[in-house]
Amino acid sequence: MRNVPMDGKTIILRIELDTQKVYFGAAATAIEQAGGDIIAIDVIQTGRDRTVRDLTVKVSEAATSERISEALESLPGIRLINVSDRTFLLHLGGKISVQPKTPIQNRDDLSRVYTPEVARVCNAIHEDLSKAYTLTIKRNTVAVVSDGTAVLGLGDIGPYAAMPVMEGKAMLFKQFADVDAFPICLDTQDTEAIIAAVKAIAPGFGGINLEDISSPRCFEIEQRLREELDIPVFHDDQHGTAVVLYAGLLNALKLTGRNIADARIVVCGIGAAGTACTKMLLAGGARHVTGVDREGIICRDHHYPNGMWQWYAEHTNEERRNGGLAEAIKDADVFIGLSAGGILKRELIQSMAPDPIIFAMANPEPEIRPEAAEDIVAVIATGRSDYPNQINNVLCFPGIFRGALDCRASCINEAMKLAAAEAIASVISQDELSPLYIIPSVFNQRVVEEVRRRVVQAAIASGVARKQPRE
Amino acid sequence: MRNVPMDGKTIILRIELDTQKVYFGAAATAIEQAGGDIIAIDVIQTGRDRTVRDLTVKVSEAATSERISEALESLPGIRLINVSDRTFLLHLGGKISVQPKTPIQNRDDLSRVYTPEVARVCNAIHEDLSKAYTLTIKRNTVAVVSDGTAVLGLGDIGPYAAMPVMEGKAMLFKQFADVDAFPICLDTQDTEAIIAAVKAIAPGFGGINLEDISSPRCFEIEQRLREELDIPVFHDDQHGTAVVLYAGLLNALKLTGRNIADARIVVCGIGAAGTACTKMLLAGGARHVTGVDREGIICRDHHYPNGMWQWYAEHTNEERRNGGLAEAIKDADVFIGLSAGGILKRELIQSMAPDPIIFAMANPEPEIRPEAAEDIVAVIATGRSDYPNQINNVLCFPGIFRGALDCRASCINEAMKLAAAEAIASVISQDELSPLYIIPSVFNQRVVEEVRRRVVQAAIASGVARKQPRE
Repeated sequence: MRNVPMDGKTIILRIELDTQKVYFGAAATAIEQAGGDIIAIDVIQTGRDRTVRDLTVKVSEAATSERISEALESLPGIRLINVSDRTFLLHLGGKISVQPKTPIQNRDDLSRVYTPEVARVCNAIHEDLSKAYTLTIKRNTVAVVSDGTAVLGLGDIGPYAAMPVMEGKAMLFKQFADVDAFPICLDTQDTEAIIAAVKAIAPGFGGINLEDISSPRCFEIEQRLREELDIPVFHDDQHGTAVVLYAGLLNALKLTGRNIADARIVVCGIGAAGTACTKMLLAGGARHVTGVDREGIICRDHHYPNGMWQWYAEHTNEERRNGGLAEAIKDADVFIGLSAGGILKRELIQSMAPDPIIFAMANPEPEIRPEAAEDIVAVIATGRSDYPNQINNVLCFPGIFRGALDCRASCINEAMKLAAAEAIASVISQDELSPLYIIPSVFNQRVVEEVRRRVVQAAIASGVARKQPRE
Repeated sequence: MRNVPMDGKTIILRIELDTQKVYFGAAATAIEQAGGDIIAIDVIQTGRDRTVRDLTVKVSEAATSERISEALESLPGIRLINVSDRTFLLHLGGKISVQPKTPIQNRDDLSRVYTPEVARVCNAIHEDLSKAYTLTIKRNTVAVVSDGTAVLGLGDIGPYAAMPVMEGKAMLFKQFADVDAFPICLDTQDTEAIIAAVKAIAPGFGGINLEDISSPRCFEIEQRLREELDIPVFHDDQHGTAVVLYAGLLNALKLTGRNIADARIVVCGIGAAGTACTKMLLAGGARHVTGVDREGIICRDHHYPNGMWQWYAEHTNEERRNGGLAEAIKDADVFIGLSAGGILKRELIQSMAPDPIIFAMANPEPEIRPEAAEDIVAVIATGRSDYPNQINNVLCFPGIFRGALDCRASCINEAMKLAAAEAIASVISQDELSPLYIIPSVFNQRVVEEVRRRVVQAAIASGVARKQPRE
């Protein structure tokens, strides 16, 4: 079956007509009878016997576009070449371009940006490598690197199919924080090969944003690159999620009159993001964190072959609870879910402490839908944009890299991540704070500036900044 | 000594004044007395005791800027922070940016270019990898890859210092042929590591332009990548030079009534470019090519440990000449120099056949200066922009990649390179052709379009095109 786009509203049909066999009117009638409304016609090619046209058609629902396709395909003399919707059209030819900052209009321009004058600039950098930060794109450029093994909820779809996500991320970097980001999708899943490739391409970049690399390889890749490169390396799926979750938690705790040191927190789903969230919680002062995964509560009574779980066992669950989610969640103040859709039942929430806080961040289906829990919780947040309190990485990565680049930080450390979370939380004032508003919108323009400001401060205070930026 | 820029006309001095110790007037006087003319003042920072200002100063000659620097540095209370000229200012923060093609202004935009809608685009590519060419930047994007080992005439200056050249190249790609090019400078000189890194990053690119990689590693790197990747790989220092040289030669032969099969051609300097030029000549039908390097004429009577020279010996110099340049050049019709400045003497030219053709392409100093030979040659071309007939790679790489991308060529083969050379040569009409005009200007707008057109034709004819582009 044709892969009919699910996006409603407007579709573009490219059709080829054999003008000997069929009039265009027949096609138009078929489209209208199937429920479509033709709003524009563009002739793409025209010949003696054949014409190719793009028809822009309004449709009321997804099923309509399928009906239209079938109706057209059943007409003799008409070939349906393609059905696009706005999303696919936006992706045609990719979503980013590389632009010269100045035009090259004459010999004088050419001789400055290229040979022979560029040689003086090269020499200046050769004599003092730190000048790469002033005289090349390194100052403002981040590589968005993926191997395509854990893309969105789609899993291992490979480097070619991962490109649209990385291009989208590059757009967001530019739009929200004026960072030049370039997508690098790697055609290898080998840990050492990925590390070697990223190290090899690093000279031109001021930072590395790792993205959608599957666990547990993502841990070693990030750790090794952090150790072996002198520019920030940040695995957004881990730390971006952790920073934004922690920002939301700060406001939820404030709203319910709790402090983090006393809060009993359950983290459900101990993969890359769950581990990173737990590390943020501990760095922020949490003392009662219990992790639970499909195999049960992670407890220091057991030994785990997975090194990350072993670490987890040794640093959490001081009560040595055992059992499953039901045992973990009893009397807890906070549930943080990074697991699977629908696993959190009302009865479990009812076993928590009064005024429980729920972060149900499984994607696309949360651990429990807000409408199923809103009457028995103090606050609920999800990863979805169609409910209040969306925990969205876009709140973090533009500002945190903006800050790191502006002060030429050699890394993004825990202090900078905590500062970023506090900055995001601080954008909502005491007056504005409510159960439906614990986290700002990604379109709140104060977020990036505030994250940048506090990240720069934290980088300077923790000694990893190599430059004092102008305010 | 301060690295004073040599670029005359306008310089920008950034100075810090201790306002307790010195008035600005003293600085202004010092600059004017040293021969500078202050045309603008910008206050950058100002405090109680200190101010930082940028002074834009017109200077008549390079020595003036040095005199001004010294005069300022001798004034107590003044610190000269930096001296920039227009070339350095053009490089501040790098020369290219990454731009979104559409803005992300609201939630609807965000959901199309990023999650959740982007997942449908990822899935479409995952199901049919060829869609990477329509739905990602691959269609129009080239990596400009260098390890910084043979940058301009500067040699092994490393990947950081090579960036300004690669950024400049990316600008030229965009400006001349609307190709999105991104600089990748590699922090390794190991052949296998370079091959692995380029293969790893290839999925997002539609072509690889190798640049400024030293010989002989460049041969193996290019050959292996051509074999192991399904996108065009083109080492511009070899093939770009060869294509443009060959274009110039076609017109010079025409002008002097020769044909390539009968012409006796000496190639002086058998490195990467000299070898590539020779291969073009042979592919174009030349039958009498003799190569000469510092160690003498390359001849099949000898055995060469350098594999490239061994190949060269077996495919050239059918007369088995021995000796040096003097023996090689006697009675030759064409001299092609890719060697060292000043090595071609008048006496040697006088030993050539009547109406000799000279390509003196050593950089920055040609094998002989045109003014020293113009009375005894039919045509002379150099690599310099300040003489007529500049052999400049910029004539080739934008159009050849434009053509290769437009027809999704799997490689850039000999047929495409010959077509590109013929296209460049054809831009000069029979009427226009003269000893001072055998090669078009890089700003001639017909060049890219003509190169593209013929390269696409050649790719289709030789079976390496994967798409028939619309005209």
